[in-house]
Amino acid sequence: MKIAAGMAATGFMTVSGQAKASETAIKNVFVHHVFFWLKEPNNTEARTQFEKGLQGLITVPLIQTSHIGTPVESPREVVDDSFTYSYIAFFGSKEDQVIYQTHPIHLKFIEDCQHLWEKVIVYDAMD
Amino acid sequence: MKIAAGMAATGFMTVSGQAKASETAIKNVFVHHVFFWLKEPNNTEARTQFEKGLQGLITVPLIQTSHIGTPVESPREVVDDSFTYSYIAFFGSKEDQVIYQTHPIHLKFIEDCQHLWEKVIVYDAMD
Repeated sequence: MKIAAGMAATGFMTVSGQAKASETAIKNVFVHHVFFWLKEPNNTEARTQFEKGLQGLITVPLIQTSHIGTPVESPREVVDDSFTYSYIAFFGSKEDQVIYQTHPIHLKFIEDCQHLWEKVIVYDAMD
Repeated sequence: MKIAAGMAATGFMTVSGQAKASETAIKNVFVHHVFFWLKEPNNTEARTQFEKGLQGLITVPLIQTSHIGTPVESPREVVDDSFTYSYIAFFGSKEDQVIYQTHPIHLKFIEDCQHLWEKVIVYDAMD
């Protein structure tokens, strides 16, 4: 089993069993959640290229952990399942996210992939 | 130091040092991200009540870990910083999230707090 040693300083960890909610909640992180709507969401080649781009993007060293996903369809009106890709990066601080914005790997991702998307929404949140 | 034992089965963990991005990425999770726009975002009493509601909500046992946050303001056009609260719950499966929807704690949260918000957007994503 791998240990969340890298997260020790930031509280990005949980405990097993009947832990209190306050103990299992992620704390002291900057959550950077980006939703991408591709121009051609059903184009396999575009998807492959974009996924390769995301896999490169998450190697930015400032990212503590990340999640790359696709929408789960839902009939519920409050659920927006229209996006093509969901990408979350967790940072240890607001400052780290600022540095990330102009990191060469991030800039390369934008250069390589921006022609693939037609819409992006970013939500940044801190606890 | 607390260990992410509860996440061992789901890959919700990372490794320290020069780990590959593929090793630090969160895998096998259902990400349920909800953004709330309160009717009175600057009303301290409403905020306190809503925050208390969220603290109760994250005690639903099916939630592996969670994050409660507020927006980080940004001048960038792609960033939507207009929401009042961000709430993320991580589930181990799509089925767990379905059960969560009708869990008594979730229903109580909606009953207690729905008068406080004017808009909700839910994004569900899986890797």
